[in-house]
Amino acid sequence: MEIRPGHLLQSINHPDDLKKLGREQLQLVCDELRQYIIDIVSVHGGHFAASLGVVELSVALHYVYNTPYDQLVWDVGHQAYGHKILTGRRDNFVTNRKYKGLSGFPKRSESIYDTFGVGHSSTSISAALGMAMAAKYKGEHRKSVAVIGDGSMTAGMAFEAMNHAGVADSDLLIILNDNCMSIDPNVGALKEYLTDITTSPTYNRLRDEVWNLMGKLPVGKNFSRDMASKLEAGMKGMVSKSSNLFESLKLRYFGPIDGHNITKLVDTLKDLREMPGPKLLHIVTVKGKGYALAEKDQTKWHAPGLFDKVTGEIYKKKIETPQPPKYQDVFGQSIIELAEQNSSIMGVTPAMPSGSSLKFMMEKMPHRAFDVGICEQHAVTLSAGLATQGMRVFCNIYSSFMQRAYDQVVHDVAIQKLPVIFCLDRAGLVGEDGPTHHGCYDIAYMRCIPNLVVSAPMNEQELRNLMYTAQLESNQSPFVIRYPRGEGVMPEWRTPFEAVTIGKGRRLKTGKEIAILSFGHPGNFATAAIRELRTQGIDPAHYDMRFVKPIDEALLHEVFSQYSKVVTVEDGTVVGGFGSAVLEFMNEHGYKASLRILGIPDRLVEHGTPKELHRECAYDAQGIADAVRDMMKETVKVSVSAGI
Amino acid sequence: MEIRPGHLLQSINHPDDLKKLGREQLQLVCDELRQYIIDIVSVHGGHFAASLGVVELSVALHYVYNTPYDQLVWDVGHQAYGHKILTGRRDNFVTNRKYKGLSGFPKRSESIYDTFGVGHSSTSISAALGMAMAAKYKGEHRKSVAVIGDGSMTAGMAFEAMNHAGVADSDLLIILNDNCMSIDPNVGALKEYLTDITTSPTYNRLRDEVWNLMGKLPVGKNFSRDMASKLEAGMKGMVSKSSNLFESLKLRYFGPIDGHNITKLVDTLKDLREMPGPKLLHIVTVKGKGYALAEKDQTKWHAPGLFDKVTGEIYKKKIETPQPPKYQDVFGQSIIELAEQNSSIMGVTPAMPSGSSLKFMMEKMPHRAFDVGICEQHAVTLSAGLATQGMRVFCNIYSSFMQRAYDQVVHDVAIQKLPVIFCLDRAGLVGEDGPTHHGCYDIAYMRCIPNLVVSAPMNEQELRNLMYTAQLESNQSPFVIRYPRGEGVMPEWRTPFEAVTIGKGRRLKTGKEIAILSFGHPGNFATAAIRELRTQGIDPAHYDMRFVKPIDEALLHEVFSQYSKVVTVEDGTVVGGFGSAVLEFMNEHGYKASLRILGIPDRLVEHGTPKELHRECAYDAQGIADAVRDMMKETVKVSVSAGI
Repeated sequence: MEIRPGHLLQSINHPDDLKKLGREQLQLVCDELRQYIIDIVSVHGGHFAASLGVVELSVALHYVYNTPYDQLVWDVGHQAYGHKILTGRRDNFVTNRKYKGLSGFPKRSESIYDTFGVGHSSTSISAALGMAMAAKYKGEHRKSVAVIGDGSMTAGMAFEAMNHAGVADSDLLIILNDNCMSIDPNVGALKEYLTDITTSPTYNRLRDEVWNLMGKLPVGKNFSRDMASKLEAGMKGMVSKSSNLFESLKLRYFGPIDGHNITKLVDTLKDLREMPGPKLLHIVTVKGKGYALAEKDQTKWHAPGLFDKVTGEIYKKKIETPQPPKYQDVFGQSIIELAEQNSSIMGVTPAMPSGSSLKFMMEKMPHRAFDVGICEQHAVTLSAGLATQGMRVFCNIYSSFMQRAYDQVVHDVAIQKLPVIFCLDRAGLVGEDGPTHHGCYDIAYMRCIPNLVVSAPMNEQELRNLMYTAQLESNQSPFVIRYPRGEGVMPEWRTPFEAVTIGKGRRLKTGKEIAILSFGHPGNFATAAIRELRTQGIDPAHYDMRFVKPIDEALLHEVFSQYSKVVTVEDGTVVGGFGSAVLEFMNEHGYKASLRILGIPDRLVEHGTPKELHRECAYDAQGIADAVRDMMKETVKVSVSAGI
Repeated sequence: MEIRPGHLLQSINHPDDLKKLGREQLQLVCDELRQYIIDIVSVHGGHFAASLGVVELSVALHYVYNTPYDQLVWDVGHQAYGHKILTGRRDNFVTNRKYKGLSGFPKRSESIYDTFGVGHSSTSISAALGMAMAAKYKGEHRKSVAVIGDGSMTAGMAFEAMNHAGVADSDLLIILNDNCMSIDPNVGALKEYLTDITTSPTYNRLRDEVWNLMGKLPVGKNFSRDMASKLEAGMKGMVSKSSNLFESLKLRYFGPIDGHNITKLVDTLKDLREMPGPKLLHIVTVKGKGYALAEKDQTKWHAPGLFDKVTGEIYKKKIETPQPPKYQDVFGQSIIELAEQNSSIMGVTPAMPSGSSLKFMMEKMPHRAFDVGICEQHAVTLSAGLATQGMRVFCNIYSSFMQRAYDQVVHDVAIQKLPVIFCLDRAGLVGEDGPTHHGCYDIAYMRCIPNLVVSAPMNEQELRNLMYTAQLESNQSPFVIRYPRGEGVMPEWRTPFEAVTIGKGRRLKTGKEIAILSFGHPGNFATAAIRELRTQGIDPAHYDMRFVKPIDEALLHEVFSQYSKVVTVEDGTVVGGFGSAVLEFMNEHGYKASLRILGIPDRLVEHGTPKELHRECAYDAQGIADAVRDMMKETVKVSVSAGI
């Protein structure tokens, strides 16, 4: 190749271009790719440290494997920027995570190199195993590779997939990218185990023995399955001398090796590519590799926002007046205040101490607040177990991740009516993370469960009061509090706690002819809409319903006996959500008002800023005002006489 | 004790009575308990083989542990009959699984000895760990024990809990009851591993070394945590000589020991009870132990129905005329017929080959139908991976177990619009298994997901046609087919396959004034109701909607333009379900008919026969007829003029 150093990356439009390079050029490609990621993410934002950590792996995989015929599955996908840049999306990468731009995650509709859409953790082994089993069934020789971090490996789903892969006899390679991190530092016994085997002389000796043996294998395209099987037996004998966790699951284990040594990676992958059966390669990498600050504070640099790539200064919004806090911080601070008063309170997060702000309590009360790893199922049932002993557990899980623990909410909490408090963070449209992370469905999937209380605060004070109410002895029900990602509306948010009557909404203002019923923070959009509408002579009433279950029937009787036009607003799907709950009430009581349901439509909403997406879904202030104006044009006459 | 042999069990009303016995009497108690279970289950039905397998364990646990102060959690609970009989429910045990009688599972509201309600697998470690952590926090010395089978151990949730337990420093004992069985034989790498360590001389030598060391420990009430910690270090060194899977997860591993040796069990548990920290005891048992036929065919005797305990003859209903088949068998036979025509078809079941009848295909086409273990999450995402390669996967999961894989349906299937076919078996009220197993919520939690098709057949022919339609190339959407447990209505069920138009319902009959819209098999209740009503001069129309998503709007326009009174019938929750979908349609199109929604109410429905429960919920034929008669008394006048 005649490409000058410094311009290698520009020559790579697809993996075929990469394959034309000599292996001595690969380190240069890695350097350029790493720099390109730094250049783009510092200016355009996005996930940062994870992709830096797998630059060498990304290059090696596309160099060795015949992508997209061979199938790569990136677990979660935070780390897939290098993969995207190497697979036809280099120049378009500036649109990453922007409205109508590239997705921040691998996505099937975006590229044939994205074999499986990801976002939530620990799906890669199952998906890649499915691909491998299909290839075997169809007699195709394509290979399947799942790249999964040690954090994702803690989720039970990964274990389920390994339990199957170990006996499925498919040509699957699992690459365990061990960097000791989730978004926050990884936790749990598995993490300690991985550290043990990475540092243990026994394991390292074993590793060397295996590698020496590997060197003697006649690996290559002509290395047949039969020959491999014969050699496998001998090798297995050696490996099982020191059985390890993955070998216990019948996966051949290789490693640990340095995931930043491109030559070693390429050699290893070439060997493994030709080896039949299920196997696991353990590589050790540094999250944030090559950007010193990111290596040092990996959680901060997971997704730092925009920054000066030279100085490392992370840009903050210029703040002139006091700003409202994030709902997350209100949660994180309020739980400490409550826990100081109520010794029964505990906090549980599945791997989101920073994201949820439970970290404040974990620092201050380490015996009462726990990160259990990427284990939503366990988090919920652990909370249920704690609740049987009288503990008041705030189990904080992002709305879209709560989908992982749905059965546990039904089976372990609701059926037993244990008063676990679920804080559903990032409910509604989350913005740049897109459809995998939007919390669209929780109102629908929660309100159909008996015994649950399902609430949403309109602002910080309401969040605090709902948290306060949920932990009171007088509440004996499981209690869901859903709130959005990001800032609230009250700069002076640390209001005194006040109990809320469960199932009681609030009349915020009376009005004429039309009423707006809101659930949660879109109530603020309604307030803004009303401000505008009043300048146009339209004067809607506004009710913050606060609870969708139990719904405030007295308040709804008030509404429907006074208003024949009603708009509902929620940041959840319009299928089976809050609006439908209002319809069910109307139907039960024979109200025939005209109702307009605003919320997330029954289709996928892609990524963008929350503002852009609220606009698209038309439940922002403008959308509400439009709906009200539209309804005001309707003339509805309804006369009902229902005599039973 | 002066109690005569043969009458020991009668003397045990609570575990305190058991504790008064000498340990030489325990085997007699076991014999009597085993016989009592055989006596009662043979006549009254229920789960059989699992409880026989843990008779000794049940006696040993209540003998050694200070229940209910110490907390026992039985995973799944099929095996907890002995526990129930020993804890105050001996005489009432004849009501097991009967309407208003004892639950077939441990249940908190039933007994203080039932510390955690169960039914779904693999929750016990999380729950017991929560209890142990609470005890530690509160400074209580109560112990927590989770009893979990090797089948349940394959679910990821168990792994998540072990990953946490290993580092949580709580006094938790996990008892792995290894009998190589789920309901069907257990599968997967873990099962093979457990077989390996049970039979390996290395492990057995290790076991003996550990036990010898144990013998030298000054165990007892006065054995302090500090002393234990010091000794622990030395012991760990020995154990790690041959690292095992559980030791990898930082659980101290003991065993395997014979779970039918009551003396050994009592000795072992006494030692372990005083040992601090997280630990796992591996016991080997025989499912069905003590009843020869059950030992021989463990799947058949998991829950055999009524039988002659002497001859082992399982009673069958006397069949005089051809009877309708189970929906399960229609699925199991039809998938083979389809797979013979379409080579892309595969079948996946998470540990329910017999229950779902996928076993027929697994026998006939072993490379195309798979039992993946109790791994609903993996089952769904594996199916998604297979679908990316063009396979048409019928992923068969019970409705209530699908709650375990909700995120995978949303994130891995629906968001990517992969045409996986979900057969939701046991949808609706399942009967004797009760609230943990009722499939109440799937209509609500599925229809809120974009891209899904959600259907329910009214009979066998419809099930076959929906299965046929779902696998056609013309369908490119994920496709849910929900059907109930048990018999259908068509003795001549093997009808020719016919494609159904997706989203099209059926007008079964026209009528006067009132229409019944049914979804799924309750359509047959509607048919029966109509037969009765016509004798009373009431002539309702009847529509089998067949799809709740997409719902047949043309048909609904026909209904609501002709009928001002409408009844909907479904065997799902009335909150957000099929009835609500009809309400949403009405609201969107300005229809103001009077609507009555029949279905499962928004509360827990306990166990009983399906017939008893359908009656209780009033969506059986009588309930539908009552609702129709009731609505016919209403006089509704609605005039709507909506000009926009």
